[in-house]
Amino acid sequence: MSRGNQVPSSALTSEGRLRVAIEHVEPEVDGGRYPIKRELGDTIVVQADLFADGHDVIRGLLRSRHEHQDEWLETPLSFSGNDRWQASFEVRELGHYRYSIIGWVDHFATWQRDMRKRLIAQQDVTVDILIGTQLIEKAYGHASDTSRRRLKDIQAAVSRCDPRSQAELDLLLGEEAAEVMADCVDHRLSSSYDRELLVVVDRPKARFSAWYEMFPRSTTDEDQPHGTFKDCESRLSYIAEMGFDVLYLPPIHPIGETHRKGPNNNPRGDSASVGSPWAIGSRNGGHRAIHSQLGSLEDFKQLLAVAREKGIEIALDLAFQCSPDHPYVQEHPEWFMTRPDGTIQFAENPPKQYQDIFPLNFETDAFPELWKELRGVVQYWIDHGIRIFRVDNPHTKPFLFWKWLIGDVKAAYPETIFLAEAFTRPKVMYHLAKVGFTQSYTYFAWRNSKPELTDYFTELTTSPVREFFRPNLWTNTPDILTEHLQHGGRPVFMVRLALAATLGSSYGIYGPAFELYENRPQKPGSEEYLDSEKYEVRRWDITRPDSLKEFIGLINRIRRENPALQSDAHLQFHPIDNDYLMAYSKQSPDGSNVILVVVNLSPHHVHAGWLELDLSALGIHANRPFQVHDLLTHAYYVWQGSRNYVQLDPHSVPVQIFAVRRNLRREQDFDYFL
Amino acid sequence: MSRGNQVPSSALTSEGRLRVAIEHVEPEVDGGRYPIKRELGDTIVVQADLFADGHDVIRGLLRSRHEHQDEWLETPLSFSGNDRWQASFEVRELGHYRYSIIGWVDHFATWQRDMRKRLIAQQDVTVDILIGTQLIEKAYGHASDTSRRRLKDIQAAVSRCDPRSQAELDLLLGEEAAEVMADCVDHRLSSSYDRELLVVVDRPKARFSAWYEMFPRSTTDEDQPHGTFKDCESRLSYIAEMGFDVLYLPPIHPIGETHRKGPNNNPRGDSASVGSPWAIGSRNGGHRAIHSQLGSLEDFKQLLAVAREKGIEIALDLAFQCSPDHPYVQEHPEWFMTRPDGTIQFAENPPKQYQDIFPLNFETDAFPELWKELRGVVQYWIDHGIRIFRVDNPHTKPFLFWKWLIGDVKAAYPETIFLAEAFTRPKVMYHLAKVGFTQSYTYFAWRNSKPELTDYFTELTTSPVREFFRPNLWTNTPDILTEHLQHGGRPVFMVRLALAATLGSSYGIYGPAFELYENRPQKPGSEEYLDSEKYEVRRWDITRPDSLKEFIGLINRIRRENPALQSDAHLQFHPIDNDYLMAYSKQSPDGSNVILVVVNLSPHHVHAGWLELDLSALGIHANRPFQVHDLLTHAYYVWQGSRNYVQLDPHSVPVQIFAVRRNLRREQDFDYFL
Repeated sequence: MSRGNQVPSSALTSEGRLRVAIEHVEPEVDGGRYPIKRELGDTIVVQADLFADGHDVIRGLLRSRHEHQDEWLETPLSFSGNDRWQASFEVRELGHYRYSIIGWVDHFATWQRDMRKRLIAQQDVTVDILIGTQLIEKAYGHASDTSRRRLKDIQAAVSRCDPRSQAELDLLLGEEAAEVMADCVDHRLSSSYDRELLVVVDRPKARFSAWYEMFPRSTTDEDQPHGTFKDCESRLSYIAEMGFDVLYLPPIHPIGETHRKGPNNNPRGDSASVGSPWAIGSRNGGHRAIHSQLGSLEDFKQLLAVAREKGIEIALDLAFQCSPDHPYVQEHPEWFMTRPDGTIQFAENPPKQYQDIFPLNFETDAFPELWKELRGVVQYWIDHGIRIFRVDNPHTKPFLFWKWLIGDVKAAYPETIFLAEAFTRPKVMYHLAKVGFTQSYTYFAWRNSKPELTDYFTELTTSPVREFFRPNLWTNTPDILTEHLQHGGRPVFMVRLALAATLGSSYGIYGPAFELYENRPQKPGSEEYLDSEKYEVRRWDITRPDSLKEFIGLINRIRRENPALQSDAHLQFHPIDNDYLMAYSKQSPDGSNVILVVVNLSPHHVHAGWLELDLSALGIHANRPFQVHDLLTHAYYVWQGSRNYVQLDPHSVPVQIFAVRRNLRREQDFDYFL
Repeated sequence: MSRGNQVPSSALTSEGRLRVAIEHVEPEVDGGRYPIKRELGDTIVVQADLFADGHDVIRGLLRSRHEHQDEWLETPLSFSGNDRWQASFEVRELGHYRYSIIGWVDHFATWQRDMRKRLIAQQDVTVDILIGTQLIEKAYGHASDTSRRRLKDIQAAVSRCDPRSQAELDLLLGEEAAEVMADCVDHRLSSSYDRELLVVVDRPKARFSAWYEMFPRSTTDEDQPHGTFKDCESRLSYIAEMGFDVLYLPPIHPIGETHRKGPNNNPRGDSASVGSPWAIGSRNGGHRAIHSQLGSLEDFKQLLAVAREKGIEIALDLAFQCSPDHPYVQEHPEWFMTRPDGTIQFAENPPKQYQDIFPLNFETDAFPELWKELRGVVQYWIDHGIRIFRVDNPHTKPFLFWKWLIGDVKAAYPETIFLAEAFTRPKVMYHLAKVGFTQSYTYFAWRNSKPELTDYFTELTTSPVREFFRPNLWTNTPDILTEHLQHGGRPVFMVRLALAATLGSSYGIYGPAFELYENRPQKPGSEEYLDSEKYEVRRWDITRPDSLKEFIGLINRIRRENPALQSDAHLQFHPIDNDYLMAYSKQSPDGSNVILVVVNLSPHHVHAGWLELDLSALGIHANRPFQVHDLLTHAYYVWQGSRNYVQLDPHSVPVQIFAVRRNLRREQDFDYFL
């Protein structure tokens, strides 16, 4: 439990001579207890405080390596003031990287620095020169072959000089000597940071993804009662045209019959009811089987293949729970909670009862077998080409189960993405991200006013949370038709889509309910959809001319074309003097792409206001004009200075997505300008 | 280096069933890497985030124990919202305490909670009652003898009831059952925080102390050239009357003769020079010897004894460096740096040279012997009754040396106090405190304007630094006569004294230079005193009628009588609309004692302004009058509301120290009030 470094011991080991202290390494999650998350190709800037007693010159290295490499990559730290040092490394492989910091006193650099001061003060340096040459002599013991050759060259050159001549001093105080000597370090006297820190490196889609959720059974045309994978296949072009790159399907497994729910969550469904896809398992199989009305495994594989051609990856749902008809119930009753009357405990949140669902008992004595079986389920779908899983209610299963399962899967398939569907308390959501989830649902759906949105996204993008929690912003889900969406019609859907797609580099919609702005709740005050697809097959007229399809397609194209919108790292809010108007910018890591979004949050009225841009943060010169180009309407504006007028009409386009161009072409740019 | 908890392993151990996550324990320094500091009798409030998957009821315990105890004290955590829990423990012994947190799912409490909901919903609970009784049955396995008896009583009572009767339910859902069952925990399923955290418990003087620095040789009267311990003895009453409880003496050891400094740091002192006491060691001895002109060891012990009677503790100086005449130089040349010409390296900070000082070489191969010898020096003075050490320039010796030395001393003598005299970069000063120093010098002397003072003391008292860094505020030292003190005369000394004594629960002055407001620098722009006592004997007329002795005595009495001023934990600044006026309050831990200080920072002009008090922080009702009583002038004011007028004249008393009395006696308080 405790670490030995807290209580001093009276033993005097060689550690006593480690003079450099290393503290406050960043990035670091919870004192190094959890990994940070990054994506392939990222450059990770690591900072740390390094200092020693006294006034000697110190040096340090950032050490980094992929977990599969034996050798550390060593990158010299550079000093950035106030005892802070930094260096960076690039992550070029998926999986875990380790990084840490070492530091030591550089006696030769100290000697060089002090010699220069002595020479300026015209002190007698006869003995000091000898000290310098002694340091070079001693360095052989810690020199590589190359360094040894270079040391020899320096020594030979020094010996050819007259003693105490300027030539000798130039050699001893030169760059070459400094450089070679910095490479000859007795690392037994180097301090190491007390923890090796971890990075989980995911593929870029972990950071930048546009999700579309769709019930496969609702893709049917009028002629057949139940959609199939074939129907889904026909729907792929529509989804690709809107620009989504992840298609998430609710569970595709056989649906239980016992206590099957009817339309609108009627607890007594009749035989015509199709049931909830989350009531998984029937005599036809469980989590590895496919609901026969959707088609065969072959059909599914065909769907995956066609989707892949269109740039769409299919995400499956991991809903680790069972209908009473799931084969596990007969084969492994020990994986469930059995009540004293011999019945199996169904799901409940007293007094609510969900008799169509048996939760798995993760506290069972047989938990290793249960966990391995669930791991097997994931492996089954991985074997069939799935690499993205949306995980249903992960907060009702133990954290350590997820840590193990996700860790074990990603050790072999580091490209796998797990999205945590946990709508619960913030610390629980953050903890799921810490233990391994790649992306997480957020409270975005319920953040609608300017202060709410500003506070929440400031927390997600600037607090320590940013190191491990990747937000995925959903406008709606089959469970969540927010009251906000129920009122305000088409404009509110446009605003929420634009917010999700630009505040979040990953976002999702549940369609076609969204693009057709379905907004009827099951009853007033409810967030459930009327005639919810969770319990029945719906037919949608995706060809409706008032569909948001074109708008969504345009927004997704803007996202693809502008790196600024592919990360949340550089989100910044800018004040506007109107509470209904909100503005924020994002920048690409290199700053070359800058997007400014202005939104009218009111679906009812035209709003105008004065925007106060943080020009220096955007890299814009305060005294020069710059251009903003609305990528939605193609309007161009030339602005100058931080204060600019904006006006938005919710009934045309309630949002402006400006590409900011810092340098306007001016007369100076012409060839014939003097 | 790295801890196994970061990378998931595929092994499924029983740990998989630990469902409670424990995070963000506070107080905690650098993720648990260093101990926090507290004082005897303190109550330590520990907070942590605890949460589990799902909706089960969880419980947790704070575990604490003195390092010498084997048994944990277990204190139940109470819930304080947003997944935060807390409990506290009292520290009643000096030394190290450990503390940590454990948490688990309470299945019986979950069952009770759910049962109540089921009963309200009038559900059939026949089977659920059986589940409850089964839980009681299972609890025997983890019950203490007492609990087992109580479980039996409950079971017996239940069995006498009619099945499913109200009486049976009352028993099963009762407080008694909850309480016993909460005590029967299978701790194999309890999670532990991954680190045991440490508290260093010091005596209260570590937090609350008033220091007086004095050169013993400058206590002489006109008849003799050099003061002695006997003279110091005569000075003790004077010091006690001013209210100081620590008397710190610069080094009392034999002073080197080689390169002895003359007055005003003259590098060529003549034979009459007394030299710097920090040039330690002569043929008469080193760090364990006493400078013969001061007296004998017996005289010193006598001084200690008399001081103790007067409530004054003597602090010695640990200046681990040597004059060229120190016996170590002959006996242990290997403890120094030898130059190629055979000479020993003197101290330098190129181009400055300090030929009267040989630094010890902490990097010597013989460092274990050197360290042990220095430990022996400390032991020697401990054996003679010293328990407070002011450490000279600790930042020029390795951190790990101090960690070892202080740790080793305090393991045997936990009452020992080490004050770090490190005037260097902030992170280095903080690190010395982390590795063990009890108190630390600060930048107070150079913080003079309102924003400077506010920012610095806000950092010291509200940032994480507060957990390990105990500021000791010095108005001046033999090295530091700030430019601020050089201008402004008596009023500036009064202001600086009042600030030091009320902003800091520990503070110090170097006298009699301070109380006689000596303010002549060696040369313009220098912070060195003219005719510094570091290099010569000074005679002070402590009977001067304009001395600040009375003022200092009064301030120190106010400190002793007001617990609010004995800690920095509850310092709070209050705005005033005049940049020369500053106001702040302190409270005792229980809030019963409230002190409000208002200072005129200008030594030149009368200043007045409107003070905006944070009444709720002071526990004052916004609509009721309250009394402020100036403890310096005994003026009484009745104020009401947050906004109050203050005016201070630097030429009478530039500071007001108000005792704030929240409740004024009113007519309602009279017996005859209706």
